Amino acid sequence: MRIVLDAMGSDHAPQVDVAGGVRAARRFGQEITLVGDQKRIQQELDQYDTAGLKLTVVHADQVIEMGEHPSEAVRNKPGSSMVVGMKLVRDGQADAFVSAGNSGGVLATALVSAGRLERIHGVQRPAISTLVPTAGAKTLLLDIGANTDCKPDWLVQFALMGSAYAKVLGVTNPRVALLANGEEDTKGNAAVQAAHALLRQLPLNFVGNVEGKDIVRGIVDVIACDGFVGNVALKTAEGVFSMILSQIKQEIKAKPLTSLGGLLAKPAFKTVSKKLDYREYGGAPLLGVNGVVIIAHGRSDALAMENAIGVAINCVENKLVEGVRSDIEASLPTLTRLMQPQQQT
Amino acid sequence: MRIVLDAMGSDHAPQVDVAGGVRAARRFGQEITLVGDQKRIQQELDQYDTAGLKLTVVHADQVIEMGEHPSEAVRNKPGSSMVVGMKLVRDGQADAFVSAGNSGGVLATALVSAGRLERIHGVQRPAISTLVPTAGAKTLLLDIGANTDCKPDWLVQFALMGSAYAKVLGVTNPRVALLANGEEDTKGNAAVQAAHALLRQLPLNFVGNVEGKDIVRGIVDVIACDGFVGNVALKTAEGVFSMILSQIKQEIKAKPLTSLGGLLAKPAFKTVSKKLDYREYGGAPLLGVNGVVIIAHGRSDALAMENAIGVAINCVENKLVEGVRSDIEASLPTLTRLMQPQQQT
Repeated sequence: MRIVLDAMGSDHAPQVDVAGGVRAARRFGQEITLVGDQKRIQQELDQYDTAGLKLTVVHADQVIEMGEHPSEAVRNKPGSSMVVGMKLVRDGQADAFVSAGNSGGVLATALVSAGRLERIHGVQRPAISTLVPTAGAKTLLLDIGANTDCKPDWLVQFALMGSAYAKVLGVTNPRVALLANGEEDTKGNAAVQAAHALLRQLPLNFVGNVEGKDIVRGIVDVIACDGFVGNVALKTAEGVFSMILSQIKQEIKAKPLTSLGGLLAKPAFKTVSKKLDYREYGGAPLLGVNGVVIIAHGRSDALAMENAIGVAINCVENKLVEGVRSDIEASLPTLTRLMQPQQQT
Repeated sequence: MRIVLDAMGSDHAPQVDVAGGVRAARRFGQEITLVGDQKRIQQELDQYDTAGLKLTVVHADQVIEMGEHPSEAVRNKPGSSMVVGMKLVRDGQADAFVSAGNSGGVLATALVSAGRLERIHGVQRPAISTLVPTAGAKTLLLDIGANTDCKPDWLVQFALMGSAYAKVLGVTNPRVALLANGEEDTKGNAAVQAAHALLRQLPLNFVGNVEGKDIVRGIVDVIACDGFVGNVALKTAEGVFSMILSQIKQEIKAKPLTSLGGLLAKPAFKTVSKKLDYREYGGAPLLGVNGVVIIAHGRSDALAMENAIGVAINCVENKLVEGVRSDIEASLPTLTRLMQPQQQT
C-alpha cells in the first residue's frame, strides 16, 4: 500500500506533516510518499532516523494557501502539492491522499484539477465529513462545508455515504440521523423535511431527526446536514469547548486554594481533554469521490497527521470507495423515482 | 406598569412560574398578573407572604402544551393562558407578556390567536431571540426557531430588530453580524450572502460575518441567522456545555486525589457555571410584534422567571416596540428598493 501525504498542508507545514509521515511509516510499515518542496522536506527528514522506513518524496513546487479561492487556485497551480499528490492516486500509483491543507482546495482538487478523481457514479455532491468527539460512541458529521445550499437528495446521499464510512469504521448497521431543529419528524427546514421523507424509504438504518445537543451525545453514528449548518455546528462546538476550558482555567488560577485544587484535579482534566481531542481521530474522508482522500485539521500536530494516515490505511483496507459506490448504487433507482415528482414542479 | 405572566408555561408550572412572579412583584414593585388555572395558582400563592405585593390572578382554563402544533393549538384553545394573557396586552390592559411555555405557541399566539398582537408594520417575520452566555459581552442570537427557511430581507430585519433590542439593553451602536461558515464576505449560503450585501447598505453597525465559534466569544452584540441554524447552534452550545461539565465531574470523581482537587476548586466551577447560566438572563423578546413578549426557557426556575419579568420591565421602560418600529421604518425604503430586482427574477 502507498499513501500520499501533502507535506505542505498543515498550518505548520512541512514540519509537522513530515514528522507525522515519519511516525506513520514507522507505525504502519506502509510506504508514505511526501509531496511538496523537496528541499524543505529533506531538511525535515534529516532530523529523523529513517533507516528501514518506506519513505519517498515527490517534488511539487506550488502550494494551495489557506486563503485562496479553491477552484481558481487548483486550476492555476497544477504543480501544487495537492494536485501532484492526488494525481498519484488518480493514476493508480498510490492508494490514498492525505492533506491538512485548505479543505475547499482538497475538494476542488478532487473535482476540477489536473489530478481530479471525480465523483463516484451517481453521487450528486461529495461531502466533507468529520468525527465529532462525544460522551459516547464516535459520531460522524457531514457535510461540514463542501455544500452550503443543499437539495434533499444531496442530504440523502450524505446520509448514505456517512453510513458507508461508519461501516468501514467497524459499525454494524450504523444509526443515521438528520440534523434538525427538533426531534419530531415534522421539524427541519424544507430540504431536511423532504430528505426525511426520502430516507424513510431507503435501505439504511435511518433513526430520524436529532438536535444540536445530540451532536456530542454519541447516540447515533452518522448525522447528515448541509455544509452551512454543519460548519456552524462544528465550530460552535469547538468554540464552546475552548471557551469553557479557558474560563475554568482562569477561575481556578484566580485564588490560591482553587489553584491547588486545580493542580490535584489536573489528571481528570487531562483525561477529558484527551477524550475530546480531535487529534486522536486525525482526519476523516472526503466522501463521494473515486479514491480515498483524507482531510486533516489545519492545526494538526505530528500525532494528528500520523493518525490521519492511519485513517487512510483503514479506508483502503476496508474498501471505502467500493462501499460508498455500492450503497449509492443500491439506492439510486428508488431515489431517482422518488425525486421525479419534485423535479417536475 | 402591569406585567402579565403565563403561570402555566414552564416545565414545572405553575409552581416555579408563580414563585418567580412573587419574587418579581417583591423586587420590582410592579403589578404582576398571573394567568392560568386560578385554583392551582392560588394554592401556590398561599405558600408565600404576599402582603403589600401587587399580584393579581386572571383565570384561564386551557393550556398550550409543549408537544402541540402551535397554530392549531392557539386557534383551538382561545381560553389558554397564552391567548388570554397576551390579549390583555393587545387590549391595552397590560404592558408586557412573559411565558416559559412552548415558544412556537407564543409566536402563534402573537400572530394568529384571538389575542394576537400582530406584526409591527413593515416587519416580514417576527424572530425569537436569546442572549447567549459568552466569555465577553452578552451576544443576542436571533432567530432561534421561528423561521426555518428565510429570505435575505428577513435576515436583514432580524439584524435590525436585534440591534434595536441591544440598544434597549444599553449598548450604544451595537455591533451586528451574520452567522456564516467563514468570516470572509463571500461566505454563507445563498440567503446569507444576499443579506450580507443588503446589510452593507443599511444604517446599522454591520460588522460582517462571524463563525460558530464566535457565538460564545462575546465579540459582537447581535448575531442574525435563520431559525434553523440558530436553533442548531444554540442547542449545540448547550449540549457541549453540559457534556463537558459532566465529563469533568465524572473524571474528577473517579479518583480520591482528583476528588479532593475538585472539592478545593469548586468555587471556580461555581463562578463559571453562574457566569454561563441562562437563568441569569431569564428570557429574551419575541421581536417584531406589536407588544413586549418575553420568552423564557422551558426549564426555567423561579430565579429565571423573576429575571424574565425584569427583562420585560426593561423592554417596556426603554420602549422596545417603538425602537423596533422606528429602525424597521428607517430601513424600509432602502430595503424595498434593493429587494426589487431580486423579486422580479
